[in-house]
Amino acid sequence: MLETICRMKNKFKYSFEQLFITRLLLRWTILIFPVSLLTGLLVALFMRLLDLATKTRLHYEWIIFLLPFAGILITWLYQFAGKNSEAGNNLIMSEIHRSGEGVPARMAPLILFTTVITHLFGGSAGREGTAVQMGGSVSGLFAKWFKLNDEDKRILLMCGISAGFGAVFGTPVAGTVFALEVLTIGRIKYDALIPCLIAGIIADITCSSCGIHHTHYQINYIDERIRLFPHLSFDIILLAKVIIAGVLFGCTGTLFSELSHWIKAKSKIYIKSVWLIPVVGAALVIGISYVLGTRNYMGLGVTNPEGVSIVAAFQPGGAETFSWFWKLLLTAITLGMGFKGGEVTPLFFIGATLGNTLAVISGAPIDLFAGLGFIAVFAGATNTPLACTIMGAELFGADYILYYAVACFTAYYFSGHSGIYQAQRVAVSKF
Amino acid sequence: MLETICRMKNKFKYSFEQLFITRLLLRWTILIFPVSLLTGLLVALFMRLLDLATKTRLHYEWIIFLLPFAGILITWLYQFAGKNSEAGNNLIMSEIHRSGEGVPARMAPLILFTTVITHLFGGSAGREGTAVQMGGSVSGLFAKWFKLNDEDKRILLMCGISAGFGAVFGTPVAGTVFALEVLTIGRIKYDALIPCLIAGIIADITCSSCGIHHTHYQINYIDERIRLFPHLSFDIILLAKVIIAGVLFGCTGTLFSELSHWIKAKSKIYIKSVWLIPVVGAALVIGISYVLGTRNYMGLGVTNPEGVSIVAAFQPGGAETFSWFWKLLLTAITLGMGFKGGEVTPLFFIGATLGNTLAVISGAPIDLFAGLGFIAVFAGATNTPLACTIMGAELFGADYILYYAVACFTAYYFSGHSGIYQAQRVAVSKF
Repeated sequence: MLETICRMKNKFKYSFEQLFITRLLLRWTILIFPVSLLTGLLVALFMRLLDLATKTRLHYEWIIFLLPFAGILITWLYQFAGKNSEAGNNLIMSEIHRSGEGVPARMAPLILFTTVITHLFGGSAGREGTAVQMGGSVSGLFAKWFKLNDEDKRILLMCGISAGFGAVFGTPVAGTVFALEVLTIGRIKYDALIPCLIAGIIADITCSSCGIHHTHYQINYIDERIRLFPHLSFDIILLAKVIIAGVLFGCTGTLFSELSHWIKAKSKIYIKSVWLIPVVGAALVIGISYVLGTRNYMGLGVTNPEGVSIVAAFQPGGAETFSWFWKLLLTAITLGMGFKGGEVTPLFFIGATLGNTLAVISGAPIDLFAGLGFIAVFAGATNTPLACTIMGAELFGADYILYYAVACFTAYYFSGHSGIYQAQRVAVSKF
Repeated sequence: MLETICRMKNKFKYSFEQLFITRLLLRWTILIFPVSLLTGLLVALFMRLLDLATKTRLHYEWIIFLLPFAGILITWLYQFAGKNSEAGNNLIMSEIHRSGEGVPARMAPLILFTTVITHLFGGSAGREGTAVQMGGSVSGLFAKWFKLNDEDKRILLMCGISAGFGAVFGTPVAGTVFALEVLTIGRIKYDALIPCLIAGIIADITCSSCGIHHTHYQINYIDERIRLFPHLSFDIILLAKVIIAGVLFGCTGTLFSELSHWIKAKSKIYIKSVWLIPVVGAALVIGISYVLGTRNYMGLGVTNPEGVSIVAAFQPGGAETFSWFWKLLLTAITLGMGFKGGEVTPLFFIGATLGNTLAVISGAPIDLFAGLGFIAVFAGATNTPLACTIMGAELFGADYILYYAVACFTAYYFSGHSGIYQAQRVAVSKF
């Protein structure tokens, strides 16, 4: 009897599924709207402050010597007011996998403030971790206010990731796929496909309506060289170069995540006082920069009027041979030793400069390879090849989407089963 | 003891994972090469013949009256030589889900010949089913020769889908994602990510190196209108129109698949002789065309010198208000009553013309909406929103990728849990 009712109910539901879907989507739109509006506003505020911090640092050269004190302040803030928010992105991902203590609301102001501090005093870090954590924290808060059940809370947290990511890079479609793809290696589930897209769009519109402009990158390369095999309607040699570069991008992604984890683990073991960790980290960052004789690898590194930067790496001569390695090292130290910020913009920097170097060595088009490195090192380190391929199309246009896919998928395979997010699970092994 | 050895073996494997992945990818490249080369050549041959068939049909107007006999010939061929290949794409998908009798080699020549026959005499059908079936059939053949185990056979079959799809539309990245996405609703597994990409690329290069040119579609719309809300850096009104269009595209996708299934089922019940089914189908196709006074809805419909076609739908006046419905009806009859060919090109036609109509009604840009319909009706009918979003970027450029995603994801949700492939499984419910 009960079974019959249940079956009838199901049949009824499937007969009018369009109505149920409409109701579901309207409900989600209402739930998501405040979350992504607030996330978009916070991201806009954050990017304004970040811009100000970068300008201030470039203006007052002595400011970097305060980096150790900034580190102590950040450590103190997380020790006394952090609760469980120190875990950052990993906390949000764990909460999506299995509901626990929840993402605390304090995570948003804490990460916002500490990231700006990190950048102001010259730490090498990114933005996306901050944006994603603000999104997750806002989601957690609203989930509590709305009294959502665990399943809905999960979806709202994924929306928070998508909103933060979409707003900070101006790439809502990549943000949507990223939020779904980053949780588990080797699988995407579509349980939050439209909610994440709604969140990404609202947050992106909000952020750019606040006057935030995203950096434009250009791949101007036009494929018109004389080919080795004129009968093939495709540049096989370039494809081979892209595959080899993809392997190296993937290995570089792994190198970054392994090195960050290693520095974090070892500094906890060998430096007895937690207060000393950021001081040593700051000393290393400043010391290495002085040995190299450049401050190009401090801060965000998107633009730089006279040195190596992400934008410069798209031009011939825009990066030095080992720029990628120094940025990798300084970021791993900064983030592994108590400072705050994202990993993704440094990964863009590492990838774009490595792409520049590889293009010079192999005689490949520089702007194309900088673009491929930009997305593929990130794809390897976070195990998100589809999101990165789509991001390539959103940022650089789709003319070379085939090469984006080749580079990102190859980097994904060659980055192995580790990544920067330790809360990421393995669903499908790569071999 | 055994456990320890096992653990050590695993540890060894993960320590040198890059080496294992290299070996794996080299092995797959060697396995895939002959499969996708042959698939690419077959697709090139198929597209040449298709072109010839379409030209012949346009030249000899009386040829369409032979359609009933063509139907009888096709039925006879599948009755006496088809084995299990009648099931077409569904057979390939079932074999991927669970290894059974295998995909027979005869499927390739049979589907190639019967599709060309269908097009020559004016049936309304597409190409992708044929290309995918040829890819699957070639994969099945090589899997037998290589003596692959079930798991490897599965992956090779997915490569066959990707090769066929990538070659026939010139979109290898969309083909890769399609092959992974089409198997189950609501989930992508990455177990064949790189193999499918390799297959798509080799098949596409082979096909285009044979001199096959893919149709170019253009979205020239530039977003520079005066906005209702000048403070928002986004055209909200256009977004709202795209969402509503996405709902209608999704419902149209469902209408197509339900109508095809219904016609197939009912004609088996009400028409006692199998030989009569294609005769009645042919009579309906010819009769409806005569009542409408146009042959625009027969054949492939990609281009048409003087009437409605996919290319024409991107221009103002390129489609009539109900073009989409007539194409939908004629294709459902053609494919539901014994003729052969793909469903996707007709879905492109239905979508592009419906997009044209909706753009006229709502005052939206015509080329953009034709492009959105092109990909979104397909996304709804096959439940592959990501592949279709990427296909949009590959075919029309990435400027409007956000709208592609909105239209495809919305259509995906509103198409419900059915689709044109009955062997598709549901992994994650849409509500």
